[in-house]
Amino acid sequence: MASLPNGAAAASSAAGGAPPVDKEVDFANYFCTYAYLYHQKEMLCDRVRMDAYHSAVFRNPHHFRGKVVLDVGTGSGILAIWSAQAGARKVYAVEATNVAEHARELVRANGVADIVEVIQGTMEDIVLPEKVDVIISEWMGYYLLRESMFDSVICARDRWLNPGGVMYPSHARMWLAPIRSGLGDKKMEDFEIAMNDWNHFVEDTQAYYGVNMNALTKAYRAEHEKFYLKSSIWNNLHPNQLIGQPAVVKEMDCLTATVEEIREVRAQVTLPINQDRTRLAALAGWFDVHFRGSKQNPAVEEVELNTAPDENGGTHWGQQVFLMTPSPRVNEGDSVNVSFSMVRSKENHRLMDMDITYELHEASGRKLPAVATKIFLE
Amino acid sequence: MASLPNGAAAASSAAGGAPPVDKEVDFANYFCTYAYLYHQKEMLCDRVRMDAYHSAVFRNPHHFRGKVVLDVGTGSGILAIWSAQAGARKVYAVEATNVAEHARELVRANGVADIVEVIQGTMEDIVLPEKVDVIISEWMGYYLLRESMFDSVICARDRWLNPGGVMYPSHARMWLAPIRSGLGDKKMEDFEIAMNDWNHFVEDTQAYYGVNMNALTKAYRAEHEKFYLKSSIWNNLHPNQLIGQPAVVKEMDCLTATVEEIREVRAQVTLPINQDRTRLAALAGWFDVHFRGSKQNPAVEEVELNTAPDENGGTHWGQQVFLMTPSPRVNEGDSVNVSFSMVRSKENHRLMDMDITYELHEASGRKLPAVATKIFLE
Repeated sequence: MASLPNGAAAASSAAGGAPPVDKEVDFANYFCTYAYLYHQKEMLCDRVRMDAYHSAVFRNPHHFRGKVVLDVGTGSGILAIWSAQAGARKVYAVEATNVAEHARELVRANGVADIVEVIQGTMEDIVLPEKVDVIISEWMGYYLLRESMFDSVICARDRWLNPGGVMYPSHARMWLAPIRSGLGDKKMEDFEIAMNDWNHFVEDTQAYYGVNMNALTKAYRAEHEKFYLKSSIWNNLHPNQLIGQPAVVKEMDCLTATVEEIREVRAQVTLPINQDRTRLAALAGWFDVHFRGSKQNPAVEEVELNTAPDENGGTHWGQQVFLMTPSPRVNEGDSVNVSFSMVRSKENHRLMDMDITYELHEASGRKLPAVATKIFLE
Repeated sequence: MASLPNGAAAASSAAGGAPPVDKEVDFANYFCTYAYLYHQKEMLCDRVRMDAYHSAVFRNPHHFRGKVVLDVGTGSGILAIWSAQAGARKVYAVEATNVAEHARELVRANGVADIVEVIQGTMEDIVLPEKVDVIISEWMGYYLLRESMFDSVICARDRWLNPGGVMYPSHARMWLAPIRSGLGDKKMEDFEIAMNDWNHFVEDTQAYYGVNMNALTKAYRAEHEKFYLKSSIWNNLHPNQLIGQPAVVKEMDCLTATVEEIREVRAQVTLPINQDRTRLAALAGWFDVHFRGSKQNPAVEEVELNTAPDENGGTHWGQQVFLMTPSPRVNEGDSVNVSFSMVRSKENHRLMDMDITYELHEASGRKLPAVATKIFLE
């Protein structure tokens, strides 16, 4: 035997729409990763992320001064500490993992223990002694919705936000864009090497050990096709890899969004190609969020946290690359009609399954047949 | 946020001796890794492993001809198929994960579907229609006992093995040896780089974001010390890295071993150093198992599966390296007295916590003070 040092995340499968979540499994698969300071530091070192939240809080002190704040998933406690430094009367900092202990230490060491109360538990389970004026949270996963953590923010909002209260961030968007990239060729090569290797293995196992493994070739191919070609790939793209205009596939007001509307994201978008003689290697997905306060209580200075390709360096979220294999040749003036859907994986509600169908409309007027791909964001 | 693509294995903690196992968590953390054909292939490509089991079965057909066999954790089904090919009347092949489906396909494709019955379930839960004459299983994890899978073999044996039945393998041993290695210096350097990096991070976070992170320095150091210096390291050692004689720390008769005796392994061994002017960089651990049949029903030809350092290439188990930092200078004629204990981790019964205390006795007669280290096999 000898299993991998750490089990890959995969809960036991359940049939039908939204299976109930096994809490212990969810801890083993998901929350546990946030218990490491190593991982906390990675997020705390993401300057784009840090600058956005820092600016949002300190340039809008009127949202915090004398107010009650709830930080959902406080981690190391940084947003709770900033909220206190910006003048909050009281901050409830909720954290499911043992990192809560570290948040408490940090709160004490930064002299705000009289204001920040760290509560260890899940948002769904804990009870606050009062309603709050502001909910702040850094809940965004890869391509915004991976991890499904916004569910907990919605839960917090519906239970604890005062009427007229403010969400930090207040708005979020998911983007999709056509890109060129060498990743597709590389992954296709890796896939072919893996299959060649498998074929040798089948021959050897027959020759040396008298067992015919060929019955598993189809399943092995499917497993590896998923791994190499149909899995979303983390990447920090350069803006010059964009070969056309990005489009918004989802826009969300954090004050009114429902779990229902994020459980399934569907969009039809047209992506105009603006480069000549290139290939549509992939679509890339990223998100941005905004800190605008609310209509009744707007931000003095709006702040944006943008995870788009940026030549000045990326974020720890990077972008997600969805390979189109084979990748069609495209030219300036062509456009790509994309039908996009993203739903939660049946096996693990924090992972996403995407269906992407694209139709290439050439500048000449010729339409190529639609091509459908499944992509897994795991 | 943005958690790691796959959750690190870590179940929720429980206090005291042998906490109850949450089955769903155990699937998420452990069994799931075996559901991938990629991983099955890795084991099937381990020639040392394959040759040993193949020889054990086909050189001892008297153990199989006309007999009823149970394969515990059949995986792809290879051992069950061999058992059938060697003449078994009936083979029950038990597998907890969905790889059971693939085992069924393989059994059919190899024309032994009338003999091999694949049963999906855990050994603890399933019921067989009859007792068996042979239990075959490849249950060994890193350093033999990681994964605690032998528990399921014991359960199978106590419930289903006929009196006079045979275990494949029949015996197992754990070894410990003094080695030289550059790994310790490398890991110490990595650790120091990580701590330097942390110190810069603390300065930057104070300067840019007004938060003092120093309160977490101790915890960060502990987390990284564990990761770099106190975690058992997988390695394929060259025999010339051994600087002294190996010793057995545990010997086990698979026919009589109890869960009680493997839950806690304790040993005192003396390791004579046989190289001059070198350093005791680490202790290395590995195992071997033997196929000897039983006293009443011995093997015609005994077979050994040895995972010791081997210049002709290793196994997928490799060896486990337990760093001694700082690593003392040693010379021929010195000896190292080691007090060794290995118990199951309280957080996850499939992982191991070791306590290793060594005392260096120099050839001159001088005894150096005992040094104690904790090592985590995760």
